[in-house]
Amino acid sequence: MAAAAAARLLRLAPRRLQVKTSPLAALSFPLPRTAPLAAASGRRQSFCAAAQASADAPAAAVAAATGPVGEAVGEFRKRLRVADVKGGEDEGAALVGKELAVRGWVRTCRAQRTVTFVEVNDGSCLSNMQCVLTPDTEGYDQIDSVTTGASVLVEGVVASSQGGKQKVELKVSKITVIGKSDPTSFPIQKKRASREFLRTVAHLRPRTNTFGAVTRVRNALAYATHKFFQDNGFVWVSSPIITASDCEGAGEQFYVTTLLSNSAEGGSLLKDIPATKDGRVDWSQDFFCKPAFLTVSGQLNGETYASALSDIYTFGPTFRAENSNTARHLAEFWMIEPELAFADLNDDMACATAYLQYVVKYIIENCKEDMDFFNTWVEKGIIDRLNVKWGLDLQSEHERYITEVAFGGRPVIIRDYPKEIKAFYMRQNDDGKTVAAMDLLVPRVGELIGGSQREERLDHLEARLDEQNLNKESYWWYLDLRRYGSVPHAGFGLGFERLVQFATGIDNIRDAIPFPRVPGSAEF
Amino acid sequence: MAAAAAARLLRLAPRRLQVKTSPLAALSFPLPRTAPLAAASGRRQSFCAAAQASADAPAAAVAAATGPVGEAVGEFRKRLRVADVKGGEDEGAALVGKELAVRGWVRTCRAQRTVTFVEVNDGSCLSNMQCVLTPDTEGYDQIDSVTTGASVLVEGVVASSQGGKQKVELKVSKITVIGKSDPTSFPIQKKRASREFLRTVAHLRPRTNTFGAVTRVRNALAYATHKFFQDNGFVWVSSPIITASDCEGAGEQFYVTTLLSNSAEGGSLLKDIPATKDGRVDWSQDFFCKPAFLTVSGQLNGETYASALSDIYTFGPTFRAENSNTARHLAEFWMIEPELAFADLNDDMACATAYLQYVVKYIIENCKEDMDFFNTWVEKGIIDRLNVKWGLDLQSEHERYITEVAFGGRPVIIRDYPKEIKAFYMRQNDDGKTVAAMDLLVPRVGELIGGSQREERLDHLEARLDEQNLNKESYWWYLDLRRYGSVPHAGFGLGFERLVQFATGIDNIRDAIPFPRVPGSAEF
Repeated sequence: MAAAAAARLLRLAPRRLQVKTSPLAALSFPLPRTAPLAAASGRRQSFCAAAQASADAPAAAVAAATGPVGEAVGEFRKRLRVADVKGGEDEGAALVGKELAVRGWVRTCRAQRTVTFVEVNDGSCLSNMQCVLTPDTEGYDQIDSVTTGASVLVEGVVASSQGGKQKVELKVSKITVIGKSDPTSFPIQKKRASREFLRTVAHLRPRTNTFGAVTRVRNALAYATHKFFQDNGFVWVSSPIITASDCEGAGEQFYVTTLLSNSAEGGSLLKDIPATKDGRVDWSQDFFCKPAFLTVSGQLNGETYASALSDIYTFGPTFRAENSNTARHLAEFWMIEPELAFADLNDDMACATAYLQYVVKYIIENCKEDMDFFNTWVEKGIIDRLNVKWGLDLQSEHERYITEVAFGGRPVIIRDYPKEIKAFYMRQNDDGKTVAAMDLLVPRVGELIGGSQREERLDHLEARLDEQNLNKESYWWYLDLRRYGSVPHAGFGLGFERLVQFATGIDNIRDAIPFPRVPGSAEF
Repeated sequence: MAAAAAARLLRLAPRRLQVKTSPLAALSFPLPRTAPLAAASGRRQSFCAAAQASADAPAAAVAAATGPVGEAVGEFRKRLRVADVKGGEDEGAALVGKELAVRGWVRTCRAQRTVTFVEVNDGSCLSNMQCVLTPDTEGYDQIDSVTTGASVLVEGVVASSQGGKQKVELKVSKITVIGKSDPTSFPIQKKRASREFLRTVAHLRPRTNTFGAVTRVRNALAYATHKFFQDNGFVWVSSPIITASDCEGAGEQFYVTTLLSNSAEGGSLLKDIPATKDGRVDWSQDFFCKPAFLTVSGQLNGETYASALSDIYTFGPTFRAENSNTARHLAEFWMIEPELAFADLNDDMACATAYLQYVVKYIIENCKEDMDFFNTWVEKGIIDRLNVKWGLDLQSEHERYITEVAFGGRPVIIRDYPKEIKAFYMRQNDDGKTVAAMDLLVPRVGELIGGSQREERLDHLEARLDEQNLNKESYWWYLDLRRYGSVPHAGFGLGFERLVQFATGIDNIRDAIPFPRVPGSAEF
């Protein structure tokens, strides 16, 4: 309850804008001495005034030296990233002799006879910055605080590294401990922690090699998704998360409600829940005045926009209240759902194929270091698997292909399923028995993409709704798309976390999303 | 209930992958004659075999003629878009004499003495393709079906247009009606419909000029958001939507539950809701075994990833169960929340400023036609307003600036608020009275961005939690970030629909999102 105040303060608080009547106007704000927006871009200071004088100049020098990267860093943010130093083709060799400063978290600290090696990681890449300290280094008196997990600022000169692991290291002139990390209680020590254990410290696991790499590859897959669709003229549409539409069944959906929110100390009293005379929940008193659910798919909404913008895609969270405690299911996951107007199943398969090839190529080209890591430590041979030539002749022995070859190595599309096992909206083929559906199966993950051409013929669609005993009135707006300028259209859905699994080799889907939600657990 | 079957079929169905044991293996699939993936990209057919022969060749010719656009079209999709024809600098003049085919929806059909003008829009841009028909045009016998809202395929030759409205038009050799639109019932006739009315047909409103333009600008703002952060080294992190974390209060949050889902015909019976002996809701039997909510902010989760990856941003839906029936509030809206490690409030303001300038510049450069439309029809002068130089001297008369200048024309940042009115996590300034918070106010919308430097000092943060009577144990993982390698960090939140309002001049926030959710309404 008390936490409500905090939550409320997080929101965009429109009331504060009423400056004339709010307490704000009466308060003497310590307004900045110069124009705030100009100051923000022109006169900003580093977080650490003490470190500023010595750290900024070298950083700026590196920015100038590294060209385009430097420009981005310089635009509004002077912090130099390890990826800026080591991420280039030469792995930093051109920077030898330059002074610079790096901020990050200590991975390991190894004291040898005359020197101490501190591995510093800032999450910008898998590589650490190897920092070499001697007892003469300024701040060496704090060396006992330079433990795994601590945050540090290291300043020094780039030097060629003697070890074979990296091209360059940093000869540290000064080290500053920013935030300590108690070595006896820090949960992630350098010994390998199991992924099961790391799920219990989901707030700290991105500081490990594996989860740092998963996070960066997941990010790259998301951005590549946007790039692919944007470059091909698709418009991103946000389909709704909460829906009171009767189109989606209640079977595996979460209810969204405020009826339980008038909670007394210790929990909601059943007698406080609004009820009708016959003892049923009185939905008319709920927030949306009827039962509302978390969406299981944005497809039907996406179709409305495809019927106006032609090519659209959604990319947002979807939900299943399915009691599956497996390595393949999440209660909350992200889904990508393109919808193509004036398109048939062949166009749909072509789109799915081009999309998948694009994002795989993108991460192989842009996440080389992370992909090498997965190739070595998570799934040996994953890069070869992703690079494999696509296309299989399923003319004969298709069953063997599906079960052996598909799962042994290559993606396969299965199409034209019997209509009885597929959804009402899939377009009936001329044989009267099958629908224009397709699934794309990939090794290890199984079904990655499921799509179909949609039934655009009003009479066929109504007949299918009748066959499945669905209430046509609930679908009035969906049917309207077939009443007013209906067009052949098709689309597919792709579970984003399964794509992350496919691309990284990560076994358990709970490790493919930052904060997994599964039966019994919505922590953090 | 019956609809549950449909909903279930929408999901990624892992069971189908068990081909050996499922009914699939026993069925004789009409497998494609060639390798499906190769076929998908190499041998695909158009949706309309009849139209194919005459339509594809000209389209391919245009693709070749238009260079880069043609390449994108050609990759997996041969459909030519109106934007491909008219979107260039010359507005299509170079294509005069070319044969091509366009698919879209009829906006208007005007019969004159000898010719009939049909305006066709495919949503790829604001502009229609003006199509000129004569009684000799093939398919002219269907002209009675060429009504507002109908979908058509038009094939013809590009010609210079006599009217001043456009450079080129299409002299149609053949028109095919794809989907009719009953002119007596189609809800969106050419007379201007009110935006209030259009909300009741949210599935059709993207077919209007205004909502087509809003959708495209919203898309461009989203993509520009990703581009900005990606180009600057930020990693997209998906913060969780469902949270059982005690950190967020229940005050304005939606409950997410499966306890109400065992619904009988007519609605859930109160007596079926699991209860404890003392008549309270038995949360241990809920899906997550405790109360769960829709998130009001991803910030706290974002901080965990910033404490490992350094610079991250979220972009996802957030929720408020606030009973505000205003033009400024949504129950479901999208939020962008960057978090910068090793950063202070000045860095945060610099980031917010650079971000906002970037996305505004992006839409002005990339959505010229749509922005001209808003400038003329929605908010006169909006382009000048967006182009205005930023930066105000608030040294004196700050109150007048805030109330008059800010709302009259220029964005303003207010910073360093009294700590009493701000959230516990904001960093206390040295004066002991204020916190390092900032709000960015823009004309018309008010608060667009709210941010702060976060309290990174464990003792200060714990003291603030105590002051606000918050339960420290609930925040164990948030406090862990201050126990293990704490770093100065800062971030902000931006309500995406308010950005859409700011950028388009759209008055009501319900018109800035495809399917608005507000008290009493979660339709579609």
